[in-house]
Amino acid sequence: MIRNDGRKIDELRPVKITVDYIKHAEGSCLIEFGDTKVICTASVEEKIPPFLKGTGQGWITAEYSMLPRATATRTIRESAKGRLTGRTQEIQRLIGRSVRSTVDLTALGEITVWIDCDVIQADGGTRTASITGAFVALYRALEKIDKLDAVKNFVAAVSVGIVGGEYLLDLNYEEDSIAEVDMNIVMNDVGEFVELQGTAEGKPFSRKDLEKLLSLGEKGITKLILKQKEILGVK
Amino acid sequence: MIRNDGRKIDELRPVKITVDYIKHAEGSCLIEFGDTKVICTASVEEKIPPFLKGTGQGWITAEYSMLPRATATRTIRESAKGRLTGRTQEIQRLIGRSVRSTVDLTALGEITVWIDCDVIQADGGTRTASITGAFVALYRALEKIDKLDAVKNFVAAVSVGIVGGEYLLDLNYEEDSIAEVDMNIVMNDVGEFVELQGTAEGKPFSRKDLEKLLSLGEKGITKLILKQKEILGVK
Amino acid sequence: MIRNDGRKIDELRPVKITVDYIKHAEGSCLIEFGDTKVICTASVEEKIPPFLKGTGQGWITAEYSMLPRATATRTIRESAKGRLTGRTQEIQRLIGRSVRSTVDLTALGEITVWIDCDVIQADGGTRTASITGAFVALYRALEKIDKLDAVKNFVAAVSVGIVGGEYLLDLNYEEDSIAEVDMNIVMNDVGEFVELQGTAEGKPFSRKDLEKLLSLGEKGITKLILKQKEILGVK
Amino acid sequence: MIRNDGRKIDELRPVKITVDYIKHAEGSCLIEFGDTKVICTASVEEKIPPFLKGTGQGWITAEYSMLPRATATRTIRESAKGRLTGRTQEIQRLIGRSVRSTVDLTALGEITVWIDCDVIQADGGTRTASITGAFVALYRALEKIDKLDAVKNFVAAVSVGIVGGEYLLDLNYEEDSIAEVDMNIVMNDVGEFVELQGTAEGKPFSRKDLEKLLSLGEKGITKLILKQKEILGVK
Amino acid sequence: MIRNDGRKIDELRPVKITVDYIKHAEGSCLIEFGDTKVICTASVEEKIPPFLKGTGQGWITAEYSMLPRATATRTIRESAKGRLTGRTQEIQRLIGRSVRSTVDLTALGEITVWIDCDVIQADGGTRTASITGAFVALYRALEKIDKLDAVKNFVAAVSVGIVGGEYLLDLNYEEDSIAEVDMNIVMNDVGEFVELQGTAEGKPFSRKDLEKLLSLGEKGITKLILKQKEILGVK
Amino acid sequence: MIRNDGRKIDELRPVKITVDYIKHAEGSCLIEFGDTKVICTASVEEKIPPFLKGTGQGWITAEYSMLPRATATRTIRESAKGRLTGRTQEIQRLIGRSVRSTVDLTALGEITVWIDCDVIQADGGTRTASITGAFVALYRALEKIDKLDAVKNFVAAVSVGIVGGEYLLDLNYEEDSIAEVDMNIVMNDVGEFVELQGTAEGKPFSRKDLEKLLSLGEKGITKLILKQKEILGVK
Repeated sequence: MIRNDGRKIDELRPVKITVDYIKHAEGSCLIEFGDTKVICTASVEEKIPPFLKGTGQGWITAEYSMLPRATATRTIRESAKGRLTGRTQEIQRLIGRSVRSTVDLTALGEITVWIDCDVIQADGGTRTASITGAFVALYRALEKIDKLDAVKNFVAAVSVGIVGGEYLLDLNYEEDSIAEVDMNIVMNDVGEFVELQGTAEGKPFSRKDLEKLLSLGEKGITKLILKQKEILGVK
Repeated sequence: MIRNDGRKIDELRPVKITVDYIKHAEGSCLIEFGDTKVICTASVEEKIPPFLKGTGQGWITAEYSMLPRATATRTIRESAKGRLTGRTQEIQRLIGRSVRSTVDLTALGEITVWIDCDVIQADGGTRTASITGAFVALYRALEKIDKLDAVKNFVAAVSVGIVGGEYLLDLNYEEDSIAEVDMNIVMNDVGEFVELQGTAEGKPFSRKDLEKLLSLGEKGITKLILKQKEILGVK
Repeated sequence: MIRNDGRKIDELRPVKITVDYIKHAEGSCLIEFGDTKVICTASVEEKIPPFLKGTGQGWITAEYSMLPRATATRTIRESAKGRLTGRTQEIQRLIGRSVRSTVDLTALGEITVWIDCDVIQADGGTRTASITGAFVALYRALEKIDKLDAVKNFVAAVSVGIVGGEYLLDLNYEEDSIAEVDMNIVMNDVGEFVELQGTAEGKPFSRKDLEKLLSLGEKGITKLILKQKEILGVK
Repeated sequence: MIRNDGRKIDELRPVKITVDYIKHAEGSCLIEFGDTKVICTASVEEKIPPFLKGTGQGWITAEYSMLPRATATRTIRESAKGRLTGRTQEIQRLIGRSVRSTVDLTALGEITVWIDCDVIQADGGTRTASITGAFVALYRALEKIDKLDAVKNFVAAVSVGIVGGEYLLDLNYEEDSIAEVDMNIVMNDVGEFVELQGTAEGKPFSRKDLEKLLSLGEKGITKLILKQKEILGVK
Repeated sequence: MIRNDGRKIDELRPVKITVDYIKHAEGSCLIEFGDTKVICTASVEEKIPPFLKGTGQGWITAEYSMLPRATATRTIRESAKGRLTGRTQEIQRLIGRSVRSTVDLTALGEITVWIDCDVIQADGGTRTASITGAFVALYRALEKIDKLDAVKNFVAAVSVGIVGGEYLLDLNYEEDSIAEVDMNIVMNDVGEFVELQGTAEGKPFSRKDLEKLLSLGEKGITKLILKQKEILGVK
Repeated sequence: MIRNDGRKIDELRPVKITVDYIKHAEGSCLIEFGDTKVICTASVEEKIPPFLKGTGQGWITAEYSMLPRATATRTIRESAKGRLTGRTQEIQRLIGRSVRSTVDLTALGEITVWIDCDVIQADGGTRTASITGAFVALYRALEKIDKLDAVKNFVAAVSVGIVGGEYLLDLNYEEDSIAEVDMNIVMNDVGEFVELQGTAEGKPFSRKDLEKLLSLGEKGITKLILKQKEILGVK
């Protein structure tokens, strides 16, 4: 089977990571999964949230947004609506948990790292590209403030799904919109799950389907983490 | 191993479902998973959301909330804050997708069913109790308006997790707050997954861990669906 | 004249108070005035609002809400709208003033008691049931923290009204919606008024009407306070 | 007893009503109760709210606000806070019900009259001055659009209270802030009650207290309605 | 050419300033530019905004609003909408910068002066009348707290524009709504610009047009400042 | 005098315009004024705002935002705050008026063009870069839908200012933050003003200063429009 963009079923879209994309941020990158493009920045603040006062521990939190015309038809700005959609909140919580899992917060000291993922062009997989790029921005920021010791693992994310009965890796928008099952896998560099979110959009899935999807995802994550390490000069 | 409330590791808390709990609602129940108590109602409205205009299809949507003192310390009302938290939005989207998966929306006709899950006392598992109760309320509402034909499947949900290295079914609050891994499984009555959400709170999990957790969850769901059928008089 | 639910014109609906209904709250009850059911909780917080800083005095404040399907047709959540309605604010201010009147705030010490009244099923008289139940929850909370000395009086509330020219006690929803005059009376256990709010919905009322309504209300309040005392084990 | 501003206990403050104060409004006045000054306008709109569609009936609604420096210390604008306080909502609902009671809404036809009461200087009694002035603005607006037939009654409002054990008419700010009991009476020109709101600020009040306060209020209202009629050229 | 209200093209509308219009405010006035009427108050608060902490410097900030029926058709309150319009924010920022330019903030000491401009009747030029009146209110407030030393300059504002090819001074609403070019000039008493905002509503304007408009504006400002000085008893 | 980035006082920063930067938008570009980078998109919608219903005329409106880490220290998202700042509203209104001035809205037909300017990196002059880029995006969009006939003029914008007594063209952030006078000039390709906004940040400015600044701005605009024409292939 050949996919609508010519890929094989277990093939990632071309991945491109431009590090230090934004000059002001401690860490940043522009990450591209095919036509999906996300600016990720990591900003270090010498402050911690109230619930951590006195623990000596740091914090990492994430925000996510899309430019209004990142999408095929223009989306109304959340700042104009005055509230975040449920989708946005769900995604930014997921990004936050994912990158937080890679760091020893105690070793960070009393700082907060703000991760911002802003999608400038969307073509499916914006949350997985965001997580993968967020880790790169975070890594660069911690490098800059000389806190790489706090990093325990690398983390990356990819989507998998069932489309027309086929198991596919890294769905683009067109595939995603007709998928029967859609799953986001967040995994670290020793092959462990950090997050697993599977949704039966149209048709519930069996345990056997799950097995196939997990293997496909694992394959994609391995390549993404390799790319991250290459870009960051880590062996 | 004996759990803090005397249960075995693969044992559900006592489940109690009081059907037709709210007199005004087309369908309703009070569902209890141990000390977790949720009022679920299903309200039928002769209207559909704009994006379905002209499709002849119906819709099911869900909202979720907690009374301020459902929790150990009082929580500020979202109505007082003027916005929903990310957690609330995440949960109500999950409930919505879960119950929607059980119904043939085309067979519903042009109506909207509003599912409301209001937690009056919380002790862990509020989202899984909500999904399990929401289906009961929905079933009763569809029975009342003579649309049971639209129901394709039963659905229930349960949490599983790893606590102190042990695989546990149906975590209570105390267990949940110290879990290394926390997973919510939504499954139908033929053993297929509708949703799967696993989070490594402290420690990433392996594929083997996942296998164990899924088996545990499947066991719990089977009992919950049995209970639903018994209560609703379905064989 | 026999009322739509078989009561006499000066008869209360069956009153039921289930104390300690919510396990987490310092004080709580489920109060039922016929089909009107309200969960009342009292939460003690070791903090006072800014305007009392340095006075050594405590505070009691109240919030009120209805579950969306407490009503005959579903009501949109105030958390979804992002703001409280005027009706809600009016009621919660009334509940706050009413219960505050029963306590010597100086004797409370520097704590805040949050009263939450959440209507789970509505059939008229939700504000009077809330006040009557709120006092019970407050009493239990103060008993628990050993501050019963601060309680100066009992308080209860009831509605009275003119319907079809008749003076009625404790209006249910159907009566309330066609009443010419609607009055809420909040009174303490020595027969003094704490609040009096009368509204001519359709037809202004005379001083003579007022006299009749007050006598009817007084009669109802006396019974409600008796019930509170019985439930709380106070002679 | 002489009051802090030299008045007798049953004496109103000087009342001044400047009709047609705002050139754009269909009806308007500046009303002064001593140092309390309120601009009242009545705006006619050829539209009715959704809940009246198809009834042929009109509507009257009211809004109330204070300029930030109407008060002794500057108050934050509700537009800056992004929400109305409970006090504001309570007052504007009261004004709305009060003026609505004077008009046969069926005779109005399908229009909405918006009453706006904006306090430019406050010294106690802003809600009673607002109601009294709102009626004048409404009357002028209905005169202008030739709908005086719809007016059934005049209405005015005054506060009464118990201060230091004395029964006082028309409390100014200083009196109001130390009152034991505070009551607002809204009455029509045949001596019937439209609204009655009594609050025991510090000390509950007896039925005898109530009698005294009502007589005092009736006296004040009579004078206010006389003033309205004189200003509006009605005999 | 004679204008719609009989003025000459370089003639201001009648200007009237009633000082000390609001009794509670440290400084206040009612300013009238023809039918445009604005209540301006200056409120002194013994506090400074966070960004000035520790600088020893004071602050002046401004807010602007219109009564709903200041305009020909009723405008919805910003407090009811829950947010300020862009127009309001633009105007209040302009007023703030304009009056701030007249004062040596270091000489103020650690206070904030809140300027409130509330338009009670609008007929064009509300922002220029507001600036001109705001300075008067500010001056009076500083006089009262004995800080006149901090005042470096007087400031006033006027609009100019091109209507039907004619250069006009101080546009009223009717002129403003058909103007090709609309410009607001804020100038001090030594003829220097504080703000200059020109907008081509319909037709871009040339440098020569600009020259003419500036000369016209300068003429108007001179007269306004003379009026301010006369009213404030300054030579 | 040499400026902090080596430019001459009348020299623009390097300008770079990448057309068709976002694939989904009808028109788009990435515009760079030195380190200031803005993504501008133009989205065509087959709908007009209510106030234009029935006029046959189209509309153009603009929104502006900055990514949180476009700035030296991270800025809180307006979507998180739930409201737009005054600065944002001021800028987006300015962009809207500026681009609207270039188009014959009647010739557009019943469409709305949404201009979005999203600053991804800020170093002074974000509003002038936005206007200049917005026109390019708009031009491309109108070209795509075959409506170039509606374009009457080109428009561009530049800032000028007085820094340390020197008149400077196109201020960068460092210059802008210490400028005595800051002025934004929006001009079309025949040298006419569309908008002129000058602010005396610290020191009021004379008419002579104004002359110098205008000449400097005119020079910059001429170059910017040349650049636009070159990029768009217009002679």
